[in-house]
This record gives sequence, structure tokens and C-alpha cells, in this order.
Amino acid sequence: MGLFKPSRVAHAHCDLFCGVYDPAQAMIEAKSVLNCCTKYHGSDDPVFRDRCILVKEERAELVKHHLSVLWTDFFTADHRSEFSNLDDLFWRAIHQAGVAKKSVDPSDGEKLVQLIDEIAEIFWQTEKAKGMGS
Amino acid sequence: MGLFKPSRVAHAHCDLFCGVYDPAQAMIEAKSVLNCCTKYHGSDDPVFRDRCILVKEERAELVKHHLSVLWTDFFTADHRSEFSNLDDLFWRAIHQAGVAKKSVDPSDGEKLVQLIDEIAEIFWQTEKAKGMGS
Amino acid sequence: MGLFKPSRVAHAHCDLFCGVYDPAQAMIEAKSVLNCCTKYHGSDDPVFRDRCILVKEERAELVKHHLSVLWTDFFTADHRSEFSNLDDLFWRAIHQAGVAKKSVDPSDGEKLVQLIDEIAEIFWQTEKAKGMGS
Amino acid sequence: MGLFKPSRVAHAHCDLFCGVYDPAQAMIEAKSVLNCCTKYHGSDDPVFRDRCILVKEERAELVKHHLSVLWTDFFTADHRSEFSNLDDLFWRAIHQAGVAKKSVDPSDGEKLVQLIDEIAEIFWQTEKAKGMGS
Amino acid sequence: MGLFKPSRVAHAHCDLFCGVYDPAQAMIEAKSVLNCCTKYHGSDDPVFRDRCILVKEERAELVKHHLSVLWTDFFTADHRSEFSNLDDLFWRAIHQAGVAKKSVDPSDGEKLVQLIDEIAEIFWQTEKAKGMGS
Amino acid sequence: MGLFKPSRVAHAHCDLFCGVYDPAQAMIEAKSVLNCCTKYHGSDDPVFRDRCILVKEERAELVKHHLSVLWTDFFTADHRSEFSNLDDLFWRAIHQAGVAKKSVDPSDGEKLVQLIDEIAEIFWQTEKAKGMGS
Repeated sequence: MGLFKPSRVAHAHCDLFCGVYDPAQAMIEAKSVLNCCTKYHGSDDPVFRDRCILVKEERAELVKHHLSVLWTDFFTADHRSEFSNLDDLFWRAIHQAGVAKKSVDPSDGEKLVQLIDEIAEIFWQTEKAKGMGS
Repeated sequence: MGLFKPSRVAHAHCDLFCGVYDPAQAMIEAKSVLNCCTKYHGSDDPVFRDRCILVKEERAELVKHHLSVLWTDFFTADHRSEFSNLDDLFWRAIHQAGVAKKSVDPSDGEKLVQLIDEIAEIFWQTEKAKGMGS
Repeated sequence: MGLFKPSRVAHAHCDLFCGVYDPAQAMIEAKSVLNCCTKYHGSDDPVFRDRCILVKEERAELVKHHLSVLWTDFFTADHRSEFSNLDDLFWRAIHQAGVAKKSVDPSDGEKLVQLIDEIAEIFWQTEKAKGMGS
Repeated sequence: MGLFKPSRVAHAHCDLFCGVYDPAQAMIEAKSVLNCCTKYHGSDDPVFRDRCILVKEERAELVKHHLSVLWTDFFTADHRSEFSNLDDLFWRAIHQAGVAKKSVDPSDGEKLVQLIDEIAEIFWQTEKAKGMGS
Repeated sequence: MGLFKPSRVAHAHCDLFCGVYDPAQAMIEAKSVLNCCTKYHGSDDPVFRDRCILVKEERAELVKHHLSVLWTDFFTADHRSEFSNLDDLFWRAIHQAGVAKKSVDPSDGEKLVQLIDEIAEIFWQTEKAKGMGS
Repeated sequence: MGLFKPSRVAHAHCDLFCGVYDPAQAMIEAKSVLNCCTKYHGSDDPVFRDRCILVKEERAELVKHHLSVLWTDFFTADHRSEFSNLDDLFWRAIHQAGVAKKSVDPSDGEKLVQLIDEIAEIFWQTEKAKGMGS
């Protein structure tokens, strides 16, 4: 069953307002960052390589934006007490997006994907996220 | 099982390049558009209502962008032969995003969500999408 | 007589709203895309070449945006019946903007210019466009 | 003969680089600004009026951008000697775009259109513009 | 002596790269957010009030961006050990920018300004910041 | 005394509206442009160099924007009479931002910084600027 289930995607992202948030936004861009690294090394066309760096730059910036929104708009002060590593996790993830921005090493993209994965796991444990889906 | 599964989210969105596309991007924004309509009617605070229109404007614009990318970057000429209603479906969906942009009627947001749902169903039938996920 | 005639330029571009559209917007950016390709090959300065790719990327993105607006905001369902190749023409034009984005081959830019030219010809045949000019 | 003539539209806009400039870019946005004012007064729907202000804001900003590009990227130090009112004309036009941004008085939009018209006349008198068209 | 001293302004803001950071960027936007609130209450012109909300929205978004850059690009893991309240301070400041975004209460803007002030004090205590200025 | 003094930073930047302007915005970006040039020459890593050009492009564009805002939104017609070289100074500064955009020569960045410095000196001589600070 590969079909897209829109009921799963209902999680707002516009600070304190529309109520739709989803770590998928950051993850999609992070996967794109990772692909840019892999494709960079898989080609020796200078134009293609230039575009890899260009696109990666933009995508990594979007990762940072989406993560920052999750951290301060979705997650509440209460969540931060409940998940005591939350601040640290976000700092490392957003910082890693900056690292991945300047690197073409796929392992930097992989670390980023992994950190967003950890964030997503916490995200989906909250009542707030569960309540939005259906 | 509500947890976010990153292996499902691996579908590029940067024209002919990084290989990561996912209708979830358009859907998340469309749900936000819909929420803006609902919340508009649930409040009589003029500042809040102003912001509903403001945020909806921005989100509807993002829907249009994400759908346009899917139509011409993800879907190929072959897909357009295989799914003969594809062009028409995309025109109606992108057009509907424009309608939802100027309207605060939740039914306009719902129609938009429904059209993106139809697009997502076709998306996930393609080999190209299936091949990216894992 | 080369002077700019503002009465000819009165064709809105903000979905269903302000009523000002003009294919010139897409065309100006497409000419810029084409120039980036030509200039890329006319220089061997690596900084200059990098900037060609950079600027072309941005301009091709604007072409896609302007064309998408024309397709779903200016052209109506009735226009799509009247000009039966409209959807196909737009898919090819927006798709070509993506091709031109990743290529430095001037012929890719030229194809893009040509496709926008075809769109412009249809645009100016509509009563809607004629009615806006004066 | 209403047809769009792409050969007339070949005037770059990306500072010192791609060589494509055209006052049409600023004019199209200015006409949109003007329409937003007119439409604002032609409606008493608060949502529609909100959107008028919203769209006008964005369009006026684009006018400012396009004019600034013409002033310092297209026009040279020599042009500024030749057309001694050029700096003053641009200051008044860009300033007027700011005025039109905060006003819904159509006469403010009209003044803006008129000032861009004056700029366009000078633009098309330059050899640089004439040389680009064909 | 009110003159602007450029030697004091030399603190980069583009993740891990150009080395120029300055809390002034966030502060300028925060002061603008605050002014939008004050001016909103000082007028009863609906167009002016609409624009207050509009501009405040944009400025608050910029505050969030500039703060996020400081948190993960300027401040290092070592800084976070040295200033143990840093994560909490940033969460509250970025969160407050979101609060100020949806509010027209000047006290929300003032709290934002105050929090950025606290960040700036820490910023200027670091060797990294001191080393950049001269 | 290196501490950041927020009372000095209170100068709006959103045309005719919020009343907060500060040449620091343009200067911070200009310093970043300059650093990009210096760092470009200090490295032979092609990815790093690519990013230098990329970031410089973006920063130079921001310089142009901030300067244009100062010229037509902060400075009034009266200021232009009082400081008779104002238009010329701004043309040269914004033009220089365009030069610095396409160059990796640090002296182009330095010229830009110097021109913004001259603008800042005039800015801080105005009553309008002095009145905003406290």
C-alpha cells in the first residue's frame, strides 16, 4: 500500500496560527540536500556540479526554516519539559543543516536526515500531533 | 501507528534534478489554506481575521508552486499519455488554489484538498514514485 | 518608432484579481535565460561562468512562475476549449524552462523563447487580452 | 495588430550581466498597483479589500525593485550626464511607489504610471536600448 | 556623538561562512514590529491598520530568521556550555517573535526587544564577537 | 565598551511607515560581500569558492535593497536639497553593489563599504535620524 494518505498530513506550520505542522516538510528538503551531495559525486560535469551546490544551498536553508518553525511554534514550553533533550536536538539539527549547506559530503546530509528523524519521533509522540491527523 | 516514516518521504521537487518529489508538500499547504478559512469564520477579532487572509494568501501561493513543480518536473510526457486527465486535473487544482486564495469559503479549501488528493493517487501509481520511497 | 507604449502593457498577473497579465513578463526572463547560455560560452572566466548558471537558475524559475500564472489565472476553462493545444503548449513551455534551467545549451533557451512566443500569440487572440490594453 | 512582438522585448535586468532590461517590468506592476486602488473602491467586501491592500503592497515593492535595477544597472554614468533629470526622475518614481504602497487613492497609482512612462521614454532614446531590441 | 561607526558592525550571518554576525539585524526588525503595534493603536484608518499587520507579519518573520541564524551559526557548542541559559533564551525570543506576529499589543513587541537585548549582551561577551569588530 | 546598545538601533526601513531605518543593515551585508571576496582568494576548494560567489550574490542584492529603501523612504526631498550630492552618492553606492556582485576583487567590496560609510555619515547628520535613536 504505497498510496498517499492525506489524513496523515494535517499539521500546521505558521506560528501559533493555522495549526498545520509536519516534520515531513523538513525531511523532504533534507533528502534533497542529501541527494545533491550524492549526485555531485556521481558527475564530473562542472555545470551540473555547480547546480548541485546551488540547489543544496537553497534546500538546506529551507530545512533550517522548517525546523525553526517546529521548535518554537509547534513545540510548547510544556513539551520542552517533557522531552528534556528537545532544545539540544534542535540546535544540533539546525546546526547540521548549516554544516550540510557548506559540505558536499553525503555523510553530512545523512546526519541531517537522522536528526530530523529523531525530531519526527518526538513530534509524533505528542498529543498535539496525534490530535491533528484525523 | 502514527509515527512519521521518513522512508516514505523521498520524492524530489527541484526540476529534473535532485529527484525528490512528494505531493505532501502541496497538501500540507492546502490544509493550511483550509484551516485559515475555518478559523476566519470562527473568530470576530479583526486582527486575527486579517492574518487569516494574509497567511492563506501565502499558503495558496505555495500550493500553486508545489503543484506546478509536480506537473512539469515530476510527471513526464509518458505519464501524460498514460493518465489522460492529468493536464486537466492539474489545471483545475492550480486554478482552484487561485480560487481558494481569494475566498474565505471553507468549501473552496476542501475542493483544493480533494484535487490534490486525486493528484497524489496518480502520483503514487507511477513507477517513478514507487522507486523513490525505499 | 521604438518608444515604449504603456497602453499596450496592461495585463494583470495576480490570480483572479487585479486583471493585469502580459506574456512579456515570461518572455523577458526567458531572453535573460538565453543570454546567460550565450554569455557562458563566450567567456572562460570561472567566476563569470558561475554567475551565468546562478542567474539563469533564478530567471528560469521566474519563467516557470509567470507561465503558470498565465495558464491558470489568465486563461479560462473556455479558452482551453477554444485553443485545444493550450494545456500541452503550457506543459511543454514550463517543462522547457526546467530543461533550460539545467542546461547551458543556447538552443534550450531558444526553444523556450519560441514556446512563449506561441503562448503570446494565443494570448493576444483572446478578447480578454484585447480588452485590457486600451 | 495587437500581437506580442518578442523582438521588442529584449532588455536585460540583472545588474551588469545578462543585458536584458525593459521598463515594461515596472510598468506591468504599476498598472497592477493602480488596479488594486480602483478595485478597492469598487467593492465593499472586506476580504476583497484586504486582498487589494495585500496585493498592492507586493506589487509596489516589485515596482521599486525594477526601477532601482533600471537606474543603477541599465543607466550608465554617461546617461546620467546626457539626461540631467534622470536621478531626480528615479527618486520621484521610486518614492511614488512607496506613496502608492500606503495609499488606496487611484491618483497615486496614476502618478506612478506616469513617472514610469517618463522613464520609459528616456530608456528608449538610448542607443543601448535600441541596440538590444532586434 | 551619534555617528554610525562601521568598525562596530562586522559580524557575519551566513552560516559557518562569511563570518559577519550582528544582533542589530534582529533588533532593527523587532523595533519595527514594536512600532507597527504602536502605530496600529494610534490610527483608526482601516487601510493603515491593515498595513500595520502586514508589515509586522513580515518583520516578525525576519526577527525569527535572524535569531535562528545567531543561535546555530554564530553560537557554538562551547558557547552553549558557557552560557547555560542560551537555548532557553533563544527559544523564548523566537517564540516571542511568533507571539508578536499575531498580536498588536505593544507589550508583546517590547518583550521581544528585551529578549533580543539579552541575547545581544551575551553575544558581545564572546571572544568571537569581540574579535570581529575592529 | 563593546556592548550592543539597542537605543542606538531604532531606525525604520519600511517605506513611509514604521519609521525604523538604519544604514547598519546595508553595511552588515556589504561587509559580508567583502568577506566573500577575501575568503574566495584564501581558499582553493572549488565548492567553497562556489559558495563564496553564491553568498556574495545574495548579500550584494540585499545591499542594493537596503540602500534603495534609505534613498527614497528615509531621505526626503528636503534632505536632497540640503545634501546636494545625495542622489549621486546613492547611484554610485547601489551601482557599486552591482559591481561587487560580479567581482571577486576585494577592492570592489571595500569601495562599497566606503560608500555606505559616506551615506551613514549623512544619515546621522539628519534630525530625523537623531530623533529616532532614543
